[in-house]
Amino acid sequence: VRAELTPTIAVHGGAGTLASDDPASPPGAGAPRLAGVRRAAEEALALLVRGGSALDAVELAVRILEDDPTYNAGTGAVLNEAGSVELDASIMDGATLRCGAVACVTDVRNPVVLARQVLERSPHVLLAGAGASAFARSVGIAPVANGDLVTAAQRARWLAARAPSGHGTVGAVARDRDGHLAAATSTGGTAGKLAGRIGDSPLVGCGTYADDALAAVSCTGHGERIIQLTLARHAADLVGGGLSPDDAARTAAERLAARVAGEGGLIVVGPRGVAGFAHNTPVMSRAWSDERGAIQAAL
Amino acid sequence: VRAELTPTIAVHGGAGTLASDDPASPPGAGAPRLAGVRRAAEEALALLVRGGSALDAVELAVRILEDDPTYNAGTGAVLNEAGSVELDASIMDGATLRCGAVACVTDVRNPVVLARQVLERSPHVLLAGAGASAFARSVGIAPVANGDLVTAAQRARWLAARAPSGHGTVGAVARDRDGHLAAATSTGGTAGKLAGRIGDSPLVGCGTYADDALAAVSCTGHGERIIQLTLARHAADLVGGGLSPDDAARTAAERLAARVAGEGGLIVVGPRGVAGFAHNTPVMSRAWSDERGAIQAAL
Repeated sequence: VRAELTPTIAVHGGAGTLASDDPASPPGAGAPRLAGVRRAAEEALALLVRGGSALDAVELAVRILEDDPTYNAGTGAVLNEAGSVELDASIMDGATLRCGAVACVTDVRNPVVLARQVLERSPHVLLAGAGASAFARSVGIAPVANGDLVTAAQRARWLAARAPSGHGTVGAVARDRDGHLAAATSTGGTAGKLAGRIGDSPLVGCGTYADDALAAVSCTGHGERIIQLTLARHAADLVGGGLSPDDAARTAAERLAARVAGEGGLIVVGPRGVAGFAHNTPVMSRAWSDERGAIQAAL
Repeated sequence: VRAELTPTIAVHGGAGTLASDDPASPPGAGAPRLAGVRRAAEEALALLVRGGSALDAVELAVRILEDDPTYNAGTGAVLNEAGSVELDASIMDGATLRCGAVACVTDVRNPVVLARQVLERSPHVLLAGAGASAFARSVGIAPVANGDLVTAAQRARWLAARAPSGHGTVGAVARDRDGHLAAATSTGGTAGKLAGRIGDSPLVGCGTYADDALAAVSCTGHGERIIQLTLARHAADLVGGGLSPDDAARTAAERLAARVAGEGGLIVVGPRGVAGFAHNTPVMSRAWSDERGAIQAAL
């Protein structure tokens, strides 16, 4: 009988500048972003402590952050050039390498839940656009109006053509009590993006990767640059090669800057349940469980 | 002054069974598939010998195969569940790591040409569906009717609900006289796929990868399984770690079978201009230039 392990959760709410959401950057601007990732990590950790799976934990954490209008995912996502929200998400199970993802989704409140359904109930890994919507209906996920996903703050930004960086992608990585890993990521993409643009978040190996033999990884930042390095798979391979999760994340973030001038960050959890992170941007909101099972949060 | 190198091209027309295109598998069934990859390799090699870039060479080779109704890409692609063609393609420049890709394209004759335009003229890497069509129009690529991409043979297969494996993806890898690498891949995906399904072919690191410091790779086979292992990036990393292109391809194909029960194959060219390939399926149509600059072809 295998001893039950201490579970681990780590969550991010996007890499960028403190001013990503507000150029005036008032004192305390980071507070809502910290509160949200802390709450998501706490709820996901409670699920893990009860014996829940890493896969369920990362889905829960990302769903909570999608529903939080502070982040650029689900409700509160940035608008594309046409003034609409198009959402991307992915989820991957490190125990089986099963994965599911959706892209350019316009009418689903929680893209990560739909990605989980792609994993569980379709023969495919990635569904986009109207096909993803049709699949959502076929598995009983109710439609929402695109406007219901748009917050007044994001609409005002779009009307002012004041495109923020689009940072605020959310993600989670976890190890459960059985030692299995999982990762999930969700985003509204970059503000003012072309309709149909798919970034790194829904792409297995780019924004998200999980393999019990390597690590679980979720990335955030400039998606096109992250894709060029298949950053999540690269960081997972670094852990597989012997680096600690912190060192793997730092190496990957440095490489992102050095090789393709990319801005971003990532969270990593290894097979031993140690969480690590790194970012080459001024801040990355994040929360994680420490070795005593307490939730820590930082910008 | 750097000496000009011998250029290298390798092309594939998909991994599968000899009966992939015709269950009766008559003697000589492989002949059209061999003739097509040979011609594509010859034309791309001629371009390279004239001093053309690896990027131009892989685009040309894949464009020729997209126009050949023998293969499951461009004209002659398989039909999805709804009876339509949805095309995916990607291209990557190993010198700069720039890449472009399109998915779920319904109205463009040569998706690889559109992918090249995404690389050259958009801030994005991957565009899908109607957004990809709108971008095509913005860069002057004329629309075609979806039905113009459908051959009588594929329509008959769809009507008979006799879904073939969907093999017949095409791809190319090259090294040019300056020593730069490039890769490209194009497909109609799996027969009977859900609308909106995106496979490995348009995904950087899955179906396609190129980095002058590692290798150029194009994959073919069961896309969902290839995605789980980010197979193209994995094979490129194996070359970076010291394996020959042949050994890297073989290791990757074996891993595809062993880890996720995936069927497929891949072509690889390394920085020294040596081409390699492997497949865990009965056949993979392919053509490549040998060290004397002669084109070889095999199933």
